[in-house]
Amino acid sequence: MHGGDIYRNCVSLDFSVNVNPLGTPETVKDSLHKAVELCGCYPDIHAKRLKQALCGELSLPETFLAFGNGASELFPAIVHAVKPGKTLIPVPSFSGYERAVHAAGGNIRYLPLKRRTGYLPGEDLLEALSGETDLLFLANPNNPTGRLVGKEYLIRLLDVCRRKNIRVVLDECFIEFCGEGHSLLGELKTFDNLLMVRAFTKIFAIPGVRLGYLACSDTELVGRIREQLPEWNLSVFAQEAGLACMGQETFLRKTAAYVREERRILAQRLSRMGFEVFPGEANFILFYSEKNLFESLLQQGILIRDCENFRGLSKGFYRVAVRSRQDNERLAEALERV
Amino acid sequence: MHGGDIYRNCVSLDFSVNVNPLGTPETVKDSLHKAVELCGCYPDIHAKRLKQALCGELSLPETFLAFGNGASELFPAIVHAVKPGKTLIPVPSFSGYERAVHAAGGNIRYLPLKRRTGYLPGEDLLEALSGETDLLFLANPNNPTGRLVGKEYLIRLLDVCRRKNIRVVLDECFIEFCGEGHSLLGELKTFDNLLMVRAFTKIFAIPGVRLGYLACSDTELVGRIREQLPEWNLSVFAQEAGLACMGQETFLRKTAAYVREERRILAQRLSRMGFEVFPGEANFILFYSEKNLFESLLQQGILIRDCENFRGLSKGFYRVAVRSRQDNERLAEALERV
Repeated sequence: MHGGDIYRNCVSLDFSVNVNPLGTPETVKDSLHKAVELCGCYPDIHAKRLKQALCGELSLPETFLAFGNGASELFPAIVHAVKPGKTLIPVPSFSGYERAVHAAGGNIRYLPLKRRTGYLPGEDLLEALSGETDLLFLANPNNPTGRLVGKEYLIRLLDVCRRKNIRVVLDECFIEFCGEGHSLLGELKTFDNLLMVRAFTKIFAIPGVRLGYLACSDTELVGRIREQLPEWNLSVFAQEAGLACMGQETFLRKTAAYVREERRILAQRLSRMGFEVFPGEANFILFYSEKNLFESLLQQGILIRDCENFRGLSKGFYRVAVRSRQDNERLAEALERV
Repeated sequence: MHGGDIYRNCVSLDFSVNVNPLGTPETVKDSLHKAVELCGCYPDIHAKRLKQALCGELSLPETFLAFGNGASELFPAIVHAVKPGKTLIPVPSFSGYERAVHAAGGNIRYLPLKRRTGYLPGEDLLEALSGETDLLFLANPNNPTGRLVGKEYLIRLLDVCRRKNIRVVLDECFIEFCGEGHSLLGELKTFDNLLMVRAFTKIFAIPGVRLGYLACSDTELVGRIREQLPEWNLSVFAQEAGLACMGQETFLRKTAAYVREERRILAQRLSRMGFEVFPGEANFILFYSEKNLFESLLQQGILIRDCENFRGLSKGFYRVAVRSRQDNERLAEALERV
């Protein structure tokens, strides 16, 4: 169902999850060791130090923010708080949106993005925004396509949505890999219908810790979303790791540059091998093959994401993470042996 | 609002939270240090190793179990899944039940337990179970009273509830301090209307880690409750710590004996100082005083739980944890100085 299942597969190289190829910063690991000594205390129910630090870094008021035990905790909390009648989800995309709407008993309309446009939403999405829609989920860059939508388009979309009373959940969990400049953080104050979800998980390579956040200028709604979250949803590990992730601009820039270059090389290699590679700007690549790759790679100890179960995709679609040069070469060599 | 706010108070001794006075077992701390090396991996989405180990220990099938990011995550998930029209909550009790029902938009009827019976539920609760009730929250031992309800009474209660189609959330988060023999674990198969919630937090002194679980023989309902929980709700820290908490029977027995003796001594001391001490069997004590104790103790660096904001209690009620002999003596001395 999801990537990262190293627990029921024998895996030496995991290309099925999309975390930073530069790995977890050592300062973050140090903070986690220190957090062990705090495990006997309740975590700060307000995560005050982390909230202050993050709001300082993002230049946002604290009232705009709610933390989640991973970004994935925020989606159901949003849906429970918004109580949308109809939700629009362009697909393929992360299955957690659909799961969240179903948990709250809402209705979903799926908008299939088109293969021939490389799954880039355009006029089709704008036209699908009927007056009946209450909520829209959109990931930028999208997962599993890696496709990045331009700021101008997004602002136009938000404007249309605002006029039609549609709230937009913009999932920016992978945005740092494209560069912070692509984020719509600066538009939060302009668009109170924008619910931005971001994560520490991918960019700081700490999926085992669980830490994400919501930013939104509709502070009344943020309050209602917080009421949907458990009182102590952030562990002491999440709070300490989050603090250690502050002020890492150099690491972020280095990551974006590294991923850009390695993605280019890996995508080129996959293309040359005859796979249909879809354009994308994230730290993973979607491609299509007529061959059955999943099992053959797993036999070689390499786990990739079989995207057959993504709504809007089908058999033959695969997603691989952009990892280190050496790892990516091992993947390419393994693919050549298939 | 809650105990444990050492983040906004200057505290040298925290009597406001009720964790094991013997502290976190060293093997658990070791496992948390080892878990730091796993933080770059997604946690096992099925928490398979932990589930197998716990089900072995409790002699329950895996289908009966759902884990929570702390027990407090399970209450709203239960209410969202059950969708009760009317919920009955005897008070005083943990405010998280009320918060969970409000999050799901349900109605609550409160049953005030009586001071003159030491807040022990009896015929009053049985009589309050009208046909309109869908869900009942009950903690055993209760918090903040520490009052333990006998098994015979609980079985009678569950039987009445089953006949009236009332589901019972039995919160056993503090049961290990009274002794496992008081648990209703053995009745799960008999009563499919029993939703038992338990935690690792208190007994293993790891509130910073977040780990609790639900056990229920209505496996269809357990499935629906899981759908209300985030996909990766348990961090690698929670899963590794949980595994290290298995097979700790000696620690559990030692804890129950230690708490029983120190509670007896502290309760006696409080009584002798003229406070009205309520009977209880947990690792904390509820008492009443005409004096304003909270601020005076805080000035001495001691944090206690002012219970004024507990529904069903009022100004003058306080809860203190049973800590080590030495700590409890420091509390008593500080109280004498008030």
